[in-house]
Order: sequence, then structure tokens, then C-alpha cells
Amino acid sequence: MSTKKNNEKIKVAICGGSGYTGIELLRILSGHPQVIVTAVTSEKSAGKSVSTLFPHLHKYSNLIYEPMDKTGLLKKADLFFLALPHGASQEAVNFFFSKGKKVIDLSADYRLSDPIVYEEWYGLPHKYPATLKKAVFGLPEIHRRNIRKAKLVANPGCYPTSAILGLLPAVKGKLIELSSLIIDSKSGTTGAGRKADLTVSFCEVNEGFKAYGIGTHRHTPEIEQELSSASGKNIKVNFTPHLLPVDRGILTTIYARLSKKTDTAAVLKIYKKMYKDEPFVCVLDEGVLPNIKNVRGTNFCHIGLKVVSRTNTLVIVSAIDNLVKGASGQAVHNMNIMMGFEETTGLESLALFP
Amino acid sequence: MSTKKNNEKIKVAICGGSGYTGIELLRILSGHPQVIVTAVTSEKSAGKSVSTLFPHLHKYSNLIYEPMDKTGLLKKADLFFLALPHGASQEAVNFFFSKGKKVIDLSADYRLSDPIVYEEWYGLPHKYPATLKKAVFGLPEIHRRNIRKAKLVANPGCYPTSAILGLLPAVKGKLIELSSLIIDSKSGTTGAGRKADLTVSFCEVNEGFKAYGIGTHRHTPEIEQELSSASGKNIKVNFTPHLLPVDRGILTTIYARLSKKTDTAAVLKIYKKMYKDEPFVCVLDEGVLPNIKNVRGTNFCHIGLKVVSRTNTLVIVSAIDNLVKGASGQAVHNMNIMMGFEETTGLESLALFP
Amino acid sequence: MSTKKNNEKIKVAICGGSGYTGIELLRILSGHPQVIVTAVTSEKSAGKSVSTLFPHLHKYSNLIYEPMDKTGLLKKADLFFLALPHGASQEAVNFFFSKGKKVIDLSADYRLSDPIVYEEWYGLPHKYPATLKKAVFGLPEIHRRNIRKAKLVANPGCYPTSAILGLLPAVKGKLIELSSLIIDSKSGTTGAGRKADLTVSFCEVNEGFKAYGIGTHRHTPEIEQELSSASGKNIKVNFTPHLLPVDRGILTTIYARLSKKTDTAAVLKIYKKMYKDEPFVCVLDEGVLPNIKNVRGTNFCHIGLKVVSRTNTLVIVSAIDNLVKGASGQAVHNMNIMMGFEETTGLESLALFP
Amino acid sequence: MSTKKNNEKIKVAICGGSGYTGIELLRILSGHPQVIVTAVTSEKSAGKSVSTLFPHLHKYSNLIYEPMDKTGLLKKADLFFLALPHGASQEAVNFFFSKGKKVIDLSADYRLSDPIVYEEWYGLPHKYPATLKKAVFGLPEIHRRNIRKAKLVANPGCYPTSAILGLLPAVKGKLIELSSLIIDSKSGTTGAGRKADLTVSFCEVNEGFKAYGIGTHRHTPEIEQELSSASGKNIKVNFTPHLLPVDRGILTTIYARLSKKTDTAAVLKIYKKMYKDEPFVCVLDEGVLPNIKNVRGTNFCHIGLKVVSRTNTLVIVSAIDNLVKGASGQAVHNMNIMMGFEETTGLESLALFP
Repeated sequence: MSTKKNNEKIKVAICGGSGYTGIELLRILSGHPQVIVTAVTSEKSAGKSVSTLFPHLHKYSNLIYEPMDKTGLLKKADLFFLALPHGASQEAVNFFFSKGKKVIDLSADYRLSDPIVYEEWYGLPHKYPATLKKAVFGLPEIHRRNIRKAKLVANPGCYPTSAILGLLPAVKGKLIELSSLIIDSKSGTTGAGRKADLTVSFCEVNEGFKAYGIGTHRHTPEIEQELSSASGKNIKVNFTPHLLPVDRGILTTIYARLSKKTDTAAVLKIYKKMYKDEPFVCVLDEGVLPNIKNVRGTNFCHIGLKVVSRTNTLVIVSAIDNLVKGASGQAVHNMNIMMGFEETTGLESLALFP
Repeated sequence: MSTKKNNEKIKVAICGGSGYTGIELLRILSGHPQVIVTAVTSEKSAGKSVSTLFPHLHKYSNLIYEPMDKTGLLKKADLFFLALPHGASQEAVNFFFSKGKKVIDLSADYRLSDPIVYEEWYGLPHKYPATLKKAVFGLPEIHRRNIRKAKLVANPGCYPTSAILGLLPAVKGKLIELSSLIIDSKSGTTGAGRKADLTVSFCEVNEGFKAYGIGTHRHTPEIEQELSSASGKNIKVNFTPHLLPVDRGILTTIYARLSKKTDTAAVLKIYKKMYKDEPFVCVLDEGVLPNIKNVRGTNFCHIGLKVVSRTNTLVIVSAIDNLVKGASGQAVHNMNIMMGFEETTGLESLALFP
Repeated sequence: MSTKKNNEKIKVAICGGSGYTGIELLRILSGHPQVIVTAVTSEKSAGKSVSTLFPHLHKYSNLIYEPMDKTGLLKKADLFFLALPHGASQEAVNFFFSKGKKVIDLSADYRLSDPIVYEEWYGLPHKYPATLKKAVFGLPEIHRRNIRKAKLVANPGCYPTSAILGLLPAVKGKLIELSSLIIDSKSGTTGAGRKADLTVSFCEVNEGFKAYGIGTHRHTPEIEQELSSASGKNIKVNFTPHLLPVDRGILTTIYARLSKKTDTAAVLKIYKKMYKDEPFVCVLDEGVLPNIKNVRGTNFCHIGLKVVSRTNTLVIVSAIDNLVKGASGQAVHNMNIMMGFEETTGLESLALFP
Repeated sequence: MSTKKNNEKIKVAICGGSGYTGIELLRILSGHPQVIVTAVTSEKSAGKSVSTLFPHLHKYSNLIYEPMDKTGLLKKADLFFLALPHGASQEAVNFFFSKGKKVIDLSADYRLSDPIVYEEWYGLPHKYPATLKKAVFGLPEIHRRNIRKAKLVANPGCYPTSAILGLLPAVKGKLIELSSLIIDSKSGTTGAGRKADLTVSFCEVNEGFKAYGIGTHRHTPEIEQELSSASGKNIKVNFTPHLLPVDRGILTTIYARLSKKTDTAAVLKIYKKMYKDEPFVCVLDEGVLPNIKNVRGTNFCHIGLKVVSRTNTLVIVSAIDNLVKGASGQAVHNMNIMMGFEETTGLESLALFP
């Protein structure tokens, strides 16, 4: 796959490697020429090879799941991806970080800079506020400069990635009233994780569609934090997630009242300008709207929008693959930035369509 | 199926009987003890039996598709269901209506009471404004009294049915600010009709999800007409349809700013009170949200809602089967009201779950 | 729903009423005018109403799940549907049967007339061989006469129903060599039951397809028992089940070497003749093949076939809904026969297409 | 994507580049470091850029569909992929071949070495029998040596690829009786091509499953040709295709009578030995069976099998992605072999799971 010798590659470990974000990291990293995965942990699957558990990952026949022995892992890797449940991640992140390792945390534990907000939404205190202060929110389109020198990156949630990228130019460009934001998101079922649970069983999800967690979803404060920071105002948003009967993809439809008269072309121009150097954001032409199928399996975010003059509303639609740009792909992008690699390395393949 | 003799049954004809709403009428009417389908038209399939074209409709082996000869049809039926494309329906409705027949029109041609609004959204003039004045908008929950004596019922669109039923108690109860309505709808693919078209081919739709027609969908004025009439104010709404990779179902998520402080329980009480005698509207208990899968194949509308205090917003979610409550089931309900039958006749079967 | 008064209806109980076959019984029986469901058991959901657990079953808001107290149930019902796991059903069936109740068992416990064969495939002994002798295999197309006077009916498995109905006329008509039977079946995911299990989670099943249990599936001896009995020969079959990413439906493709030269029309004639009085078997015309979508939600079995002269093979395809003709619908059919009701009562609705 | 300069890359053209196999070639080649796509044809889409028509192929914003001007194309490319309908391909292949270009034909026109067999199954004569003689059947696992020196490769059909790879070791190892082969295949809907056709519309395919073309599918003679050649016997097979409600994937279940007593382990050993050096064939361990989901988007073929002693039958199951190993991926593999590239170049990415 790569002519680079293994001893020139950086060594990475994945803690929590048998969930959907864990195996997506393995999938993506298999095509990354500057990285070698030296360890992967799973309590339940310890002792089994990756390829035994996941036949599609047959290149990893020699990589064996191991229980998470943090001290033992220290010498195995230079950079740690943590794909553990929130709460559990607090301590593990702090451990590897305090030992001088680079850490990319895919949990929610280090995303909210204010530990009080964290406790309010997650129902448990943050035990490592000092470490939390060092964490950089890993949305490269906003925080690239800080990610470059970060030792600890908190990889954003899937919904926040789609919502923030959709709103950022409108918020920074002062195009919209900030008090009226409606964020209506629809996610594929991988977003619920890999688990034995009746609510995500095929026959309950297939041919169905529902909203859930109205007004209470834990990704809300992430969105509010980043948009508030971008605008300098204290923003509150209406955020409603829905469950789509597809494997992958988030489509987010955003409604905002325009702060002054404009048209679709003018707003698109601002969006295209702001994102013109971004390797993974694609602002679609007027009249074209995103479809999650067009970003499936990729790190791209597609954005389309429309000014509805009769109601003075800007409607923005963004689409990402929740497991890639919404999780593991963005984590690899963050790694590339932290390590000084070409940003797009390992992330260039096009969507699997159909 | 019924012990009632055929000569005691009313005779109905279906014009445009090979599309999805046409065959759904046939499916539903096969279980209706007071009705016999005496004619069904289709230009393309003329000469073929219904059961040859649609093996699942095997009870209709003796019913043969015929070309639409309006004069010839007159003596065959007492009541006409018209499931023709908009535009084409204008003249056919006027013909049967002028000959004294009862007509239920499933097209959009007689839904908008103002012919100027019709022309604005459909791009063609209304040629029968006098007949249009006689049409009743066939949403029983609002217009039951008028439907009872109507000769011409304009069966509502699928999206409007879901949106209006979701908003009606809030609008009539003056719970919300009318200038801030966001209606975000997601529909199954039968909503696009039965057609050979790349955009609805399996591989384009499956595992995909997209918005379309933002700010321009033709169901917008129907929603505005009925909500304006219910509130006495001139209401404009933001309406965005999306295409779901499922056969049937519409889920509509509605956002409105509350006009005064309240809570979920109080709003639910108002909703339950308003709909308590409605046979096909089911207001779900606090904490329960609708799923299109729970209404599949039925004439029921499920409604759930939540007051989000931190943003002072009422979020309402409604679910219907677009082919039943959103089209053919509601048409049969309208027929039952027009004919003085028990309202629920032929419409009582429970959802096919899973 | 019915003008019949409740005290003229027979009382039925469902033991194991929160699985997919249990709720399908509730769905079907809600439209049956001669039956009232007086009790439904579930250990896990005891105390909850049916409509709370399953919003689509809103007509059952007064029916409360109860733990299975067999003695207490005796006075509540005249006929018992048992939808319990195999093994657990042995004792329950024997209890109700011995108390003089009519029993329809949807488990596998009383399907195999030879207790040695049962033990061989299910790995546990049959403790009630005397009761087993009284059980009738509930495939009406073969055993109608015995079902009529039976007190205990063993409702067939879903795969066996599709395979046996597909093969019966060929076997009885001596059209095929019995040593060469290949039965390749594909089932929707409801066939795996309602359970929290990773293997049936949406993201594992969706967009996937696989075979399982090759040569070892427990429905094999049921098929062999009935075909052997029909032919008077000891038949062994190759049976391979597959998992389809759909909710409902079994399509079975059967291959058999022809015992003499013939053609499709001649074989179809024999099939149509044998099934001409069967209310739920539909032999399709030459050139038409079954699709599970055409029988979804119904008790119908569609059969199509083709003689392939160049290989001297008869290929038969049958389609059923695994939850209806493959389980709960056939159980209601059996009840109708046992009770002397019109056979099709409650089972006449047409397929939900699309 | 590649550091190789464009002038060191070979230039390829794709004739018929707007169908599913055409865009799959574009997707795969976008990751191939030694190739540049210089032209792509489509009559319908001429003048549009690839990325306008297919937003997921955004890397191709400068590649414009052009009408097929064969003479004009000659100077644009060294190697031609032809993804045209059968019949139409005959002449185009002959043209490019006769001009000294390397050609990989994805149609069926040059797969059957006997023009009489071609005419029998495709209903039209082969006009270029001399060119046909030069064509090599592009299944690398059988014909690698000839492909290496070929100028014209006939890329195999999707079903034949899955069937032949599944049967090859059993046939060559004389493990099975050749007169009893049953090949039961199930394909995703991309296999039907990209077209506006009611039979592949979402609502007809979704939640459905059916067999089609029993005994008459045009891939039958391809399978027979290759198995006859491998065995030295004249083999006839029973082949039945089915339509799966998924985008991609073929699962083929094969039944053959064993020619002598053996067991699963022994047969697997023979399979593993024969395929041990094949980069794209993966023989699964005993007890593991293939799932199309594990090969989605890849060029891999997974094979599992089981000896069923009680019926003396070998059951083999193979899984491929019909658009990759069954079409465009295999075409790129053939190109790699013809050009002397590393065989796996551009084909190493792992399956998109889930």
C-alpha cells in the first residue's frame, strides 16, 4: 500500500477499537502511508484479531484486540486515538496527555471548554479541568492554527460538525439574526453506535423515521459554544435530531431570519469565499442541494443554500458522513495537521455512489 | 368480504387508477362493505385487468382498465374519485360535477379557493372558477360540516395534511407567534408518484437523503390558506420538503415561537381536547414522539410535541402515511362523510408494523 | 369494528404477546369480528398496556400485559395462541391442552411427530409424547380435515410453509425426482424475532445479504416430514436460509430434476388444479414470478414456476409474508377452521404495496 | 493524490461514462497513481462536466462528457475502457483494437469465444469474428498469463465472476459431479444499470425481492464456457438471478453433488491452496460465511463453503461487489496486468462497512 518503510511511520494506538468509529479509523488508516496502527483495544474482544471480528478489515489479520492497559500502551504508540464512551474518556485522555503523548479524543469529554456546561449536559463533573484547558476543539475550518500546535484535540461531534460548518459564514458575515436559529438534523443509524439494542434493530429502524431528544440533545452546547465564539454573542439554538433508516450520513437543514435583504447568489458568494481554501468543504452551485449519498464514505462536507425572500429566511443544508467528517475522518485530518502531514493524506477517496 | 349485496352498494369510479394513489384507493375500497368499484381508467394500461398489472390486487381480476371516456363513465358510477395530474383534473372535475355526480378530486386543482393563488403557484389559469367556489377543502378535522353536504371535495395534499393537523390547535389556541413558523417535512418516495424517472430510481434514492424545492413547493399555499383561515391572519410559512428512502410516510417537524410561557403538559392538554372526538388523530402522551412506521398503511395521524423553554419554542412532530391519510384514505374518509356512512368504515385496520 | 356483541365472541389469549408474531396476532385479530382477545402475557412487559408498548396497536389501550399464570389464564379464554420459545412451549401447550382448551402453538415443539427427530434437531427431549401424538400440523392445504377436529394445532414454521406449498403439487404429481431437491430460501429480518442483538441491528443487516445455517437449520426436518408423508418416500432436502434486508417476506427458490419431459404450461396446469379451491394460494400465470412485496401483510402464498428444458429442471418460486402466512395469519386461519368460522375471516386485506 | 507527473501516466478514455460502471471506473481511477483519464463519452450528457452530473466526483470538474467520436478519441488515449451496451460495443471495440489501441470491453460482446453461442443468446450475429478470436476473457484468476499479453480483454459479467470463482477449485479438483450444478444468485440493483425505468424505481424494488430470467439469463453461457474449459467437459448449469433491495453486491449460492465423501475442512484446504496467491480472493475459515456488506466498494471476492454430509452436497457461497470485482474494479485489475503495473494498484481500499 505504501513504499514507506514501517520504521519511518508514526505509531498510533486506538483505544476503543471495536465500535463503528474505531473500525472506521482502521479503515481510513489502512490507506494512510505515514501511519502504522500498533495497538487497538477492546475489553469484549480482547484476544481476537481485527480481521476475525471484522472480515472486511482483512488487512489487519495480525492486529489483535487487547484490554486497555494504559501503562503498557505508552511505549507502543506516539499518538492515541480515543474512541471511548464519554465519562470513561476523561481519565484516559488525561493519562496519555500527562505522559506527553499526542491525543485525539473522539468522545465528548474535552469538547466543552466550560466544565460547568459539561456537568450541566452530561450529568457528571469534569475531573481534569487543567487538562481541559489545553484541549483544542478539532474543527480545522475554525481552529486549524491551534490544532497545529495542540497536544490534545477534542474531535467534534457529528451533528455539531454539520451545523457549525453550515452556519459559520452566515454567522461571521453577520447575515442572519442570531436569536432565530433552527437546526433540524437527520442522521443515519451508525450515529447510535454499534450495540445490541432493540431501538436500533433492523425491524424497528427500517422503513421508519422519527425525531428524538428534542431540546435536550447533548450536542446542543457544542454548537452553541462554537457559534457564540464565532459571533461574540451568546447564542442559543433549537436543535432537533432525527433517525434516518440509512447506515451513514447527516443532513442538517438550518433556518435563520436574514438580517437584511439579499439573494441566494450573494450569500453563496460569501460562503464560497470563506471556504475556498478548505480541502473538505464544498459549497454547491445555486440550484444544487446536498445529498448524503454524495459524501458517503468521505471526509467532505457539501453545503447548499437558498434565500427565501417571501419569508425573509435563509435556508442552509449541509451533508456529511457522520462516521468520516463527523468522526474518524476528521480525527485523521486533525492528526495530519498536528503531525505536519499533507492535510488530505488518506482522505482523498471519492464517495461510494451508489 | 361483505354480506351486503352489490345492488345495495354505491358505485364508484376511479379516474387515473394505475398510479400509487389510484391503487391505494383500490386496496382500501376492497375492504369497504358499502362500495363497489365499477370502473377504473388508465390510458396506458387500458385493456388490462387490475390484477394483471398489480398482482397484489388479485381480488380485482374482473376489473379492466379503460381509457377515460367521460360520457361513457357517467352511467357507471355515482361517485368519482379523480386521481389525475393537476391541470388535467380541472376539466374532468368540472364535467362530472356539472352532471350532478359527487366528486372527490385528489389533484391540487380545486384546493386553493383563490384562482389567482392557484395560477401563481401552478403556472396555469383556473378555467372553472364557478365550480372552484363549490369545492370544499377535504380535511375533515376542519371542514367536516361542509364536507357532509358537499358535492365536490378537494382532497388535501399530503404535506399540508401533516402540517395543518400539527399546527391547528396551536394556531386556534393562540399559543404561538404566527410569523415564525418553520415546517420541515420528510416524505417517503411514493410521494413522488409511480413513474419511470431516474431521480426516483432505487440506486439514487436508497441510502440517500436530500431536501428539495426549498421555498417553492406547491403545497405551501395550501398550508397558508388553511392556517390563515383558522387564525384570521395572513400567515406565511417556511416549508421545506425532503425525500426519505422509505416507501411511505411523512414526518413533519414544526417550530414556532411561543406567544407566552407554558409547558409541554399544558399544550398537550389543549391538543388532546381539540382532537378528542377525531377518529383518526392521535395525540401522543408526554415523552412519546411519532414514528412514520407506527402509522404505515393507516389513516391515522400521530402527533407529539415538546415545549423547549430555553429557547421559548414549541416543537411539534406529526406523522401520517402519505398515501392513506395524505391521499386515498382521507378520500375514503371524505366519501364516508359525504355519503353518511360510519366515518371509519374501511379505514380501521392497524399499522403494518414492522 | 364489528356489530357482533362481545359476549357472542370467542375469547382468546395470547401467551408471549410482545414478540413479532404476538403483535402480529393482535394486529390481525383486531379485524376479526368473532374473536375478542381477553389476555396477553409477557414477563418483561407485565403491567404495561399493549398500546403503550406498541403505539400502532392503539385499539388495545385497555389490554394489559400480564405475567404468565397458567391457572389464572384458564378461565379467561377458550382458545390459546402460544408464541413462546421452543422448549418453553412444551409444558404450556400440554397444560392448556390437558385442561380441555383449544391450543394453537406457534413454536416448533409440536410440529415434528417423531420425538426422536425433535430431540435430534432441538437438542432436548420431548416430555409430552402423548400430547404430541394429538397435535395436527397446521398447514390447511394438507391437513384441513384434521385441523377441523383438532384440539391442538402445531402451526408450521415460516420456511417450511413456503417450501412445502411450493413443492406439494410436484411431489404429489410425481413430476420430479425426489433425491435432488434444492431449497434456497431468503427471509426478511422479522424472521429472527424481536430482540436486542447485534446480528440483527440495522447497520449490520441493511445493505447486506448472507446465507446462514447451511445444512443445519431446524426447519429442515419439518419440510422433510411433510414431503415424505405426501410422497410416501423418505425425502431428504438441501435447505439454505438467507437473511434479506427487508422487514417481511420469504422467497423460496426450489430446484428439482424433472422425472419426465414436460413444459411450463403443463406443470402450471397441475399446480392450478391442485390449489384451485385454496383461498390463500395463488398460482401465477406463465411468465409471472412472485415478489415478496406483493404478499406483504397478507396470508397469501404466491407461486410461480418454470420448466428449464436445457437442464431438465423444474424451478419453483414461492413467496409469503413470514409473519402472516408463515406464522400469525396461518394461526388465525387454523383457528377459523377449528372453530367452524368462514376460513378467510380477518384475513382478507390486500397487500400493502408499495 | 499522486506525486507522479501527468506526463508519466498512461492516458485512458472511457466510452460510455455516465452509467454506473462508467462512474465507478472514474471513482476507482481517481485513486490510481499511474493513470490519467483524458476523455469520457456520453451522448446524453455531452457538454456537461462530470462533477456537474455527479457531485460525488468533484475531482473531475475539468473533465467534460463528449459525444463518441471514435477517430477523434484515438489520439487522446492509449487504452480504452468501453462501457457501452452489448451490440453497440462490437463495432467500437473492433475500431480501437484495429487501430492498435489496448481495449478493455465491459460489455458482453467479446466474452463468448464462439460466435454461434453469442448469436444464440444475444439474438444478433457477431460481425467481427476475427477480432473476437483475439479477445481474452478477463478473469485474472484463470487467464492472467494471457491477459498480460492481450490487446483486447473482455471483462467478465458480474454473475459469472461470482459463480466461476466459487466453483473453480471444486471443478478443477474434481470434487463434484458436473451434471448437478445449481447456481442461485442474488444481485443488488446497480446490476440493472442506471436508467429511468419503473421496474427499478425505488418503490418497486425497496422491501421487495424476486427471481427473474429463470433459465434464460445471458450470463449463463459465460459460466458454462469457463467451467467447461476448466473441466474439459461440456457443462450445463442451472442459473437463477434474483434482485436484492440493496445498491451493490452479488451473493451466489452454489449447490453441487460431491463426487466422493469428504468434509468441509478438506474442501477448504483445496480452495485456500488454489487461491493462496490471488490478491483479490479470500477463502473464509470454516464456520464463516460471506456477506455482501463485507466486500462493498472493493475488488475482493469472499468465498465460504460447507459440506452437507446428510445430502452429500457441497454448498459454496461467494460474495462480490458487482460494480467492482463484477465490473469496473476487475477492469482496472486487467489494465494493471496488461500494463505491467502492480496488480493491486488503485484497488486496495477496504470495504465501506457499515
